Amino acid sequence: MRVIGIDPGLRNLGWGVIEMEGSRLRHLGNGIIHSAGEELALRLVTLHAGLTEVVARFAPEAAAVEQTFVNKDAVATLKLGQARGIALLVPAQAGIPVGEYAPNAIKKAVVGVGHADKVQVQHMVRHQLPGVTFEGPDAADALAIAICHAHHLQSAHRANAAQLGRDAIEITAGQARIRRAVQ
Amino acid sequence: MRVIGIDPGLRNLGWGVIEMEGSRLRHLGNGIIHSAGEELALRLVTLHAGLTEVVARFAPEAAAVEQTFVNKDAVATLKLGQARGIALLVPAQAGIPVGEYAPNAIKKAVVGVGHADKVQVQHMVRHQLPGVTFEGPDAADALAIAICHAHHLQSAHRANAAQLGRDAIEITAGQARIRRAVQ
Repeated sequence: MRVIGIDPGLRNLGWGVIEMEGSRLRHLGNGIIHSAGEELALRLVTLHAGLTEVVARFAPEAAAVEQTFVNKDAVATLKLGQARGIALLVPAQAGIPVGEYAPNAIKKAVVGVGHADKVQVQHMVRHQLPGVTFEGPDAADALAIAICHAHHLQSAHRANAAQLGRDAIEITAGQARIRRAVQ
Repeated sequence: MRVIGIDPGLRNLGWGVIEMEGSRLRHLGNGIIHSAGEELALRLVTLHAGLTEVVARFAPEAAAVEQTFVNKDAVATLKLGQARGIALLVPAQAGIPVGEYAPNAIKKAVVGVGHADKVQVQHMVRHQLPGVTFEGPDAADALAIAICHAHHLQSAHRANAAQLGRDAIEITAGQARIRRAVQ
């Protein structure tokens, strides 16, 4: 299963794609979509076109976006919101379900603690995706988001498998009771 | 010239289209695109698809979006930013230039004062677009944004025309000087 992580930003939108094979992860690609210039609407078109091209190229089956808040500055929060809108829109337009994770949840999933710094996160991303090189810090963050989502999907899969196991035991017990009743 | 005004919101995105013929304005359509449900990414897809359909139907040549800030609440500002990203993206994807106006500039253009209330704005929109009925308050706001942009484009047009007039006078004066010089 392929997972794309997206670190939204108006100037630099980071993306990273990994392959999840059972419990193993493999790096497929990462990069940054830059948007510059004065006109905001055209910058959003650049982000949308760039991310649409990445989604078409890697065809991920799951996506996750960082859930960021900038409390100190309404102008910055609005700008981030606009870029984040594009980050959520593009995979959803391709029919891919989109997960959202708070920064602390991502750090906890990748490093083990919620208050890890950027260097620790990048170190653990390199450890989990051997041989990876980052196009930039935003691309490394995007891979961390993808890893976080992969872990989440693996846990959900294991929980489902365990539930299936419990269901099978119940069905077997039920069948045994039925057999005893009809005998 | 057709102008679309967009009042961005995640739950209710208002739109209004007017035709500008010289200094006269005519109402063509207004409406609200609703998005509900839990998943943010799918709500953004709904807004994008709805607004894309409106732009395709009316084929406006100019667009304007309200420039709103919500200072009190970062979560609300981020949500608005996400919806606003879609409002800016859709016309720009269709190759339409997108203007942005602060709420006070819109009120000043429509009512004459920057601190007008909603009732005054709706009254003046009705006055300038006789016979109009609003699908809702967000659609009325969108029409006010379109009127504001139309006024702005008319002023720019008049300024250009005046400049062309001044240029023509200078050329005539220059030609007269040349005629005198060669006589």
